[in-house]
Amino acid sequence: MAKRNGGYHLERHFADRLLLACAHKETKLVVGLDPHFDLLPPHLVKQAQTAAGVDNPRMAAAAAILLFNKEIIEAVADQVAAVKPQLAFYEQWGPPGIQAYEETVKMAHQYELLVIADAKRNDIGSTAQAYAEAYLGTDDDAVRPHEADAITINPYLGWDGIAPFLERSSMGKGAFALVRTSNPSAGDVQNAQNAAGEPLFVHVADLINEWGNSYRGNSGYSALGAVVGATYPQDIALLRKRMPNSLFLVPGFGAQGASATDVAAAFNADGQGAVVNTSRQVLFAYRQVNDPTNYAKHARNAAKQARLSLNAALER
Amino acid sequence: MAKRNGGYHLERHFADRLLLACAHKETKLVVGLDPHFDLLPPHLVKQAQTAAGVDNPRMAAAAAILLFNKEIIEAVADQVAAVKPQLAFYEQWGPPGIQAYEETVKMAHQYELLVIADAKRNDIGSTAQAYAEAYLGTDDDAVRPHEADAITINPYLGWDGIAPFLERSSMGKGAFALVRTSNPSAGDVQNAQNAAGEPLFVHVADLINEWGNSYRGNSGYSALGAVVGATYPQDIALLRKRMPNSLFLVPGFGAQGASATDVAAAFNADGQGAVVNTSRQVLFAYRQVNDPTNYAKHARNAAKQARLSLNAALER
Repeated sequence: MAKRNGGYHLERHFADRLLLACAHKETKLVVGLDPHFDLLPPHLVKQAQTAAGVDNPRMAAAAAILLFNKEIIEAVADQVAAVKPQLAFYEQWGPPGIQAYEETVKMAHQYELLVIADAKRNDIGSTAQAYAEAYLGTDDDAVRPHEADAITINPYLGWDGIAPFLERSSMGKGAFALVRTSNPSAGDVQNAQNAAGEPLFVHVADLINEWGNSYRGNSGYSALGAVVGATYPQDIALLRKRMPNSLFLVPGFGAQGASATDVAAAFNADGQGAVVNTSRQVLFAYRQVNDPTNYAKHARNAAKQARLSLNAALER
Repeated sequence: MAKRNGGYHLERHFADRLLLACAHKETKLVVGLDPHFDLLPPHLVKQAQTAAGVDNPRMAAAAAILLFNKEIIEAVADQVAAVKPQLAFYEQWGPPGIQAYEETVKMAHQYELLVIADAKRNDIGSTAQAYAEAYLGTDDDAVRPHEADAITINPYLGWDGIAPFLERSSMGKGAFALVRTSNPSAGDVQNAQNAAGEPLFVHVADLINEWGNSYRGNSGYSALGAVVGATYPQDIALLRKRMPNSLFLVPGFGAQGASATDVAAAFNADGQGAVVNTSRQVLFAYRQVNDPTNYAKHARNAAKQARLSLNAALER
C-alpha cells in the first residue's frame, strides 16, 4: 500500500497501524459514527433540507449526516485512534446515504484516522469477496480513499465467511469478528453450552484466535480481531486470556452502561490489546446540555473525558 | 399495505403471499440475482461502458447489471415465486450499485415477483431498526417500490437482532434467519455440540421456530423463515420436523451441488414449506453453450428445467 496521510499508514499491518495510532495519541478510544437522524442538531437538518429541497428527503438526510460527521471528525480527531461508521445509518438513506458513508471515510482519512466499517457482513465464497472489495478494496487499487481500514464481520458461517476479508491483511486491512456482543439477548445463541459447560462464544473465541494466528503483525496481534462487549466484564477477562492473538474492539462503553473499570479487563498487563468504542455519549453530548449550536465542542469534551477516564482506569 | 401489482400482494402476510405465488405459478423456485461482474455477457458490459464512459467504472458496472437483471427478470418471471438479489454484488459498486439494486427491486415488483433481499444483516436496537427501514421500509411509507418483501438475517445476536425485522410483519414483510448454511465450513460454528450431542444449529432452529410462533399467517407459516442449506440433506429432514412454523429458504441447489431429490426433504408431506434458490445455474446458463447473445433465453430454459425438476421430485 502506498504511503498516505502521514505516519499511521506507513506500517502496513492493520494491528500495528491501530496500535501506533493509539500510542501516538495516548488513547484507546474509537468513536462510532452512528448518525441517528432524529438525534442530529436541528439546525443542521434544516440547513440540509433547505439545500436539498422537499422532494429529496434522502439527499437531505445524507447532507445533514455529512455536515455533522465533518464537524465531529474534526473535533475528535486528536482524541481517538479510529472512527467506526455504522453502515445501517447510511444504508437507511439509499444511494445518497452510501455516498455520505464514502465521503465520511475520506474525511476521516484526511484527519489521519483509521476507519472501521461497522457492517457485520457475513457471506461465503465470491459473495464474501464482493463484500471485502466493497469495504476494504482490492489489490489493484488499494488506496481508494473511500475504503475502510477494517470491517466488522459475523462468524456464524465459519472460516469461509472470514477468509476473504483476511486476504486483505497484506494490504494493511483488518477485520473484527463478533465473539461476545453487548446486547441484552446476546446469550440466546452465544451462551449455548457444550458438554463441558462452556458457552458457544468461547468456542468462537478459540476459532478466531486460531484463524488469526497466521495473520499477526510486528506487534504480535492479528489482522483478525474480535468484538467483545463491555457489558459482560467477567466474559471480557476470560476472553482476554483465551485470545492472545486478537485485538478487541469493545462496544458498550458509555450509553450501553459499561464503565471504564469494566472495560479495563479487555486489556493485557501492558495496557495494550483493545480499543473501546463509544458512540452516542460523544456524538450527542450536546443533548445533555441542550446546546445544539455547539455540538462539536461538546462532542470533543465528551471524547476527551472518555479518553482520559479509560487511560486512568488502565493506570490503576 | 395498499394493493399493488395484482393478486400476490392482496394477502398481507409475507408467508401467505409467498405460498400464493408458489401455488399460482406451480413453482418452488427462487432465482438469486447475483450479478457477478466477470460473468455478465460481454456485449452488455461493453454497451454499459460505452454509455457510462471510461472514467465511470462503477456507473458502467451498475448499468451493465441493470441491463442484465431486466432481461433476466422478464425471462424468469413466470417460472419463479421470488427473486433474491444478493446485496454484496450491488454494494460492490458503491452508490451506483445501490441504485441498481433499488431499480432491480422495482422491476421485479413490476413483474409481480416477490423480492427477498439477501443481505444477512445483523445488529441490535436502533441499528437493527435502521437496517429494517433500509430494506423493508416503514409504516409511514409502506409501498415504496424499492423496498424488498423479505430480508435474510443472521441470528448470532439473539432476539434483539430479529425483532426489529418482525415488526414489519404487519406490513406484509418477512425475514429468513440463517440456521444451517450450505458452505463447506458451515459446521465450524453451527455444529458446536451441546451436552446432549446436538449441534448448535438445532438450538438456533428451536429459537427461530419459537420466536416465529406469534408471527404466523393464515397458512400457519411465520413471517420468520429459516435459511437451511441443501448441501446437508440429512439436516434438512431433521429441521423440517423441528421447525413447523418456518418456511425454508433453501440455497445450494444447482451450482453448489444439491439435487432436486436432496432438497425435497425441505418440504412437508403436503408439498409446502419451502422455496429453493438457484443463482448461477440460471443466470449464467448461456456460458454452458457459449451463447451470450441469447443469455435471457438460456436463463429462462434453465429456470423452467429447475422448476420442473423440483416439482417432479416433490411428486414422488
